[in-house]
Amino acid sequence: MIRKYTFGTPFPTGAVVQSLEAAAGEVPFFETGREGEKVIFRRTMTPEEMIFGLGENVRGMNKRGHLYRAWNTDMFNHSENQPSLYASHNFLIFFRPGQVFGVYFDDPGLVTFDLGESHGTEAVITSENGNLDVYLLEGHSARAIAREFRQLTGGSYTPPRWAFGYIQSRWGYAGEEAVRAVVENHRQRHIPLDGVCLDIDYMVDYKNFSWKPEFFPDWKAFNGEMKERHIRLIPIIDAGIKQEEGYAPYDSGKARDVFCKKEDGSDFIASVWPGMCAFPDFLNPEAREWFGDLYQPLLEEGIEGFWNDMNEPALFFTEDSLREGFAKAEYQRQHLDDYEGMWALGNVFSGMANNPADYRRFYHQTPQGKICHDQVHNIYGAGMTHATAEGIRRYQPDRRYLLFSRSSFIGAHRDGGVWQGDNFSWWSHIKMAMQMMPGLNMSGFLFSGCDLGGFGMDTTEDLLARFLQLGVFTPLMRNHSALHTRDQEIYRFDSWEGMRDTVTVRYALLPYLYSEFMKAALRDEMYFRPLAFDYPQDGRACRVEDQLMLGEDCMIAPVYEPNAVGRYVYLPEDMLMIRFRSGQDYDLEPLEKSDHYIALGLHEFPLFVKKGRFALLCGGGECTEELDDTRLTALGWVEGPAQYELYRDDGVSVNPQLEEGLTTLQLQGEAGKYVWQIDR
Amino acid sequence: MIRKYTFGTPFPTGAVVQSLEAAAGEVPFFETGREGEKVIFRRTMTPEEMIFGLGENVRGMNKRGHLYRAWNTDMFNHSENQPSLYASHNFLIFFRPGQVFGVYFDDPGLVTFDLGESHGTEAVITSENGNLDVYLLEGHSARAIAREFRQLTGGSYTPPRWAFGYIQSRWGYAGEEAVRAVVENHRQRHIPLDGVCLDIDYMVDYKNFSWKPEFFPDWKAFNGEMKERHIRLIPIIDAGIKQEEGYAPYDSGKARDVFCKKEDGSDFIASVWPGMCAFPDFLNPEAREWFGDLYQPLLEEGIEGFWNDMNEPALFFTEDSLREGFAKAEYQRQHLDDYEGMWALGNVFSGMANNPADYRRFYHQTPQGKICHDQVHNIYGAGMTHATAEGIRRYQPDRRYLLFSRSSFIGAHRDGGVWQGDNFSWWSHIKMAMQMMPGLNMSGFLFSGCDLGGFGMDTTEDLLARFLQLGVFTPLMRNHSALHTRDQEIYRFDSWEGMRDTVTVRYALLPYLYSEFMKAALRDEMYFRPLAFDYPQDGRACRVEDQLMLGEDCMIAPVYEPNAVGRYVYLPEDMLMIRFRSGQDYDLEPLEKSDHYIALGLHEFPLFVKKGRFALLCGGGECTEELDDTRLTALGWVEGPAQYELYRDDGVSVNPQLEEGLTTLQLQGEAGKYVWQIDR
Repeated sequence: MIRKYTFGTPFPTGAVVQSLEAAAGEVPFFETGREGEKVIFRRTMTPEEMIFGLGENVRGMNKRGHLYRAWNTDMFNHSENQPSLYASHNFLIFFRPGQVFGVYFDDPGLVTFDLGESHGTEAVITSENGNLDVYLLEGHSARAIAREFRQLTGGSYTPPRWAFGYIQSRWGYAGEEAVRAVVENHRQRHIPLDGVCLDIDYMVDYKNFSWKPEFFPDWKAFNGEMKERHIRLIPIIDAGIKQEEGYAPYDSGKARDVFCKKEDGSDFIASVWPGMCAFPDFLNPEAREWFGDLYQPLLEEGIEGFWNDMNEPALFFTEDSLREGFAKAEYQRQHLDDYEGMWALGNVFSGMANNPADYRRFYHQTPQGKICHDQVHNIYGAGMTHATAEGIRRYQPDRRYLLFSRSSFIGAHRDGGVWQGDNFSWWSHIKMAMQMMPGLNMSGFLFSGCDLGGFGMDTTEDLLARFLQLGVFTPLMRNHSALHTRDQEIYRFDSWEGMRDTVTVRYALLPYLYSEFMKAALRDEMYFRPLAFDYPQDGRACRVEDQLMLGEDCMIAPVYEPNAVGRYVYLPEDMLMIRFRSGQDYDLEPLEKSDHYIALGLHEFPLFVKKGRFALLCGGGECTEELDDTRLTALGWVEGPAQYELYRDDGVSVNPQLEEGLTTLQLQGEAGKYVWQIDR
Repeated sequence: MIRKYTFGTPFPTGAVVQSLEAAAGEVPFFETGREGEKVIFRRTMTPEEMIFGLGENVRGMNKRGHLYRAWNTDMFNHSENQPSLYASHNFLIFFRPGQVFGVYFDDPGLVTFDLGESHGTEAVITSENGNLDVYLLEGHSARAIAREFRQLTGGSYTPPRWAFGYIQSRWGYAGEEAVRAVVENHRQRHIPLDGVCLDIDYMVDYKNFSWKPEFFPDWKAFNGEMKERHIRLIPIIDAGIKQEEGYAPYDSGKARDVFCKKEDGSDFIASVWPGMCAFPDFLNPEAREWFGDLYQPLLEEGIEGFWNDMNEPALFFTEDSLREGFAKAEYQRQHLDDYEGMWALGNVFSGMANNPADYRRFYHQTPQGKICHDQVHNIYGAGMTHATAEGIRRYQPDRRYLLFSRSSFIGAHRDGGVWQGDNFSWWSHIKMAMQMMPGLNMSGFLFSGCDLGGFGMDTTEDLLARFLQLGVFTPLMRNHSALHTRDQEIYRFDSWEGMRDTVTVRYALLPYLYSEFMKAALRDEMYFRPLAFDYPQDGRACRVEDQLMLGEDCMIAPVYEPNAVGRYVYLPEDMLMIRFRSGQDYDLEPLEKSDHYIALGLHEFPLFVKKGRFALLCGGGECTEELDDTRLTALGWVEGPAQYELYRDDGVSVNPQLEEGLTTLQLQGEAGKYVWQIDR
């Protein structure tokens, strides 16, 4: 059951697709208070109460004990204290024995979630503007509530099947030659690969929808060449449009008057990669239409996927903030003994980026009238995603597209996926990436993954190896790294063969993982879940923070510590462990419900399949289009009859229908046998 | 066996106390190369090889896979990528089945340790200046080698017994009233306490050896009042001396000409807390004598302990670096389109602190002649520790003193302890603190601990609770936090009673922990060890990164994750688990050698005692002086006769002698009995 409670005058965020009447009375499970414009929701928690949700955020799956701020931020440092990353996913499930409910705060502005930081037993959620809808969701289980929430907010985006292939990316691939070398290095070594991302380097002066003619002399031909090798190019698009007369997107944007405005009606201008930029007003339908159409030339040239970036929006600085900064430097130069000021000077310049003052300096022209950006900050990126998706769908209504964004808000999950942003080459970020997945899935973002190997800082061989082992199971499997960091394509490392073998596991599992993903998407389920969602009666399972349920039948438990030669795993029921070394090389071991220490060499990683169920491997291949899934290997601890519903489709048609894609595979198990061959 | 190899002209660091002839030939186990001034030691490692050591550094106990730089740095951000903290402890033990050896790089300048970061199978250690002694240590075990190293470098500092009490600290306790309130709040609630640290706030304008008369109108009387309440005040002393005529330490330093000099012979001046400061030349014996004598007025007033800070030395900026910084700001103001420059501007000001260029701008006058600071950077802090210790010993040769420093170098372990520097209120820093302890112990620093609750950032109730549970076992047990962070004295929190009870465990165990500490110090043993050192044949034990052996008979396994209700523990042999809730309240459970999942509520934590051995609790008390250890409770899984050598002394006399302090306690065990009362 879903109830809606309305406070103030909510701005329509686009998150919700069901139209509900607002209920009377107070929001159950909370005490509601008001302080000026703020609306504050308080809840006293029992010691055993847990909180799942908040989508893309740091720390554990159980969010209790920390303070979060829904405020989309280009935050490159995902340390464990960060209150905000790039997205606002204000959906939580409160969970304790005998009581479970979900709550969604549909508010495009700043919302703080003090989930037991100030007082261990109290959750305090504050809407700063006080204009919001609160949705209260009840059901018999966390899973049912998560499903209900998807019905409230609409079905998840489904990418084309090739997007489940391995994707190589790096900030720094300048042109054709660089990309060709990357592809060649993978193909020569038989490292499977389906895509290469182009970061901002491909553009002319970082101008959206341009590409450097000297580096891509014949863009269309190069796209064709890559496609012959079964490689898709996936270019980046940023939010800002360079303020430069003669640059067509800027000229057309000016002509249609679709940029965000300052108080005085002039365009709001801030610096990002291309220099001074105007910012499309993604809250304005006409601006979205104009921006979406800008993708068409790239589609025309053969591009089938994009990643949208810098759409929090990230701002390096404005003239106003710059003027204030230099004034402070000048003051400081004359006040050398003001030590606190001198220290702060570093932060004055570093802190110009994404400055709250700048977000108060511009406005949107919406169907609801003019509104200051800081009131609706968190839906800007979702607006960009929506504009892009609409534009692509207008051009090619019959084909699925790949799209993933850095910034997001619930609702954008209907139009695209997200990646987890600019993580570091830190061991702790493997665990963080894993722990973020169920929250993203709860919020509808099924197609996601982290920058494997880590974006910032230098990776190491063992770190990349362990990152990839998580990536085998995440829908988006992309190796990505920043300019000036160590090269981290698999083939750069001494033990590249072990990592290649890891990628072959992804390809062997791909038809199965695609089936599990599509079933989850089309049934409004989560692809990754905390164990608590599947075993709510098992107190031990509820507290497991470093394992995930995957699809209907599996569980993963990645290694995320340096120099580890194994790890502990808690099995909430009997399972078969597949200890993978490659798509063809693995051990099988039936393990009983209990605690286990699993030995895992650097290039070994496990998948656990529930007893009585089975997973499927195909023969593998070096790209998704070459996978042969006519004959499948079933792996399971099955002692009687068992069946699996395999979902399969052409991988590109829009509006996939679950029933049309399902085939039932059956086998007859017997004690001591774990492997079967099945013809599809 | 120890062999010494000499390269170039080593500067005497004071680390080593044995005089060895340099051996001929190459350093065994390494390939030695030269590049210009650099000397480079390379070693190919087998996959199973582990590396212990490097003292105070981030990441796991096994240091393999990361790059470290011995370069003492005021680094407030102990994230997992940091190559340097405040100390240089260049001693490592390479460890693999069938081969173990130690190696010490006695070099006061920059040494890099690429321990498998660039290539997973290669350790590359580079002395940048190429002037060093390398000591190669062989023995039958890692423990034996660590002992041998202590014999090479001298016995560990032993603090007075009261220093093992709980110490409360905070940057921000301004004067008597604040300290009195802290003490009162502890005593009223029966939270045991033995000391309060005074951070820089107590001084006049941050000037060393001064105290604010308005806040401490009668310093001696206040010291006396505190001592009556069994509280010691522990003031901080920084390295820099304010450049201010009329300020006695500056005037006397000028008169004796004991400050570090620039190339032109003028004093080197840089900004730290007091403003522009001169820096005592701790490499000059006369400067050390002068500086050590400055402590005497404080000793005279009744102070018995100090902490030395900012002695890397930390530098905020110099006039030279400031001039360069403002010039860059001015350039940037005129080149707004230079984006990389604009970004870098934040770092220009933040990066002025501890700037390598500044470390090349000054010189030391040593018995070996004039030498540029950057050649000997890493022994500056050790020189300050030595000066302080000499000064105190001249004043009171018959009493032990408390002294712990932020910066250190091997050799300083003979004169004082160290704390682990400015950690954060991060969960990962509980684990980091634990993992740092054995490395510090290997390097001779037995008296150490971290800032419990975390120094920077805001702590939370549960985080502080778990920090304290580690702190119960670390020789230095200090709660410390930074200005502008959340107050984190135990009594600030709703569940203060649970944390108080945790501190009572420390006091109940104190006679036992003191005995274990003193035996380790006087036998050149480590108080904390990786399990690998005790169970080298047990492959599982060797890889355990989150448990420590404590003393002869015990093992600890702290909880370091938020919202955890237990943890896994690997028992390398049968042990009795004591699950503590307070010094009087605990469960006892015999557990067999194996893996165990241990349930642990927020205020519960375990100590494991080897089967056949026992630990001891006294009745407890609210300060060390009130502990009654005439009757002890022995806890053990003992089924036959067992004995324990209890070390006990008056807690203050210098040169404690092991034999004089030992008493043998005996008991007769029987199956099913775990508790005995023993009269000492």
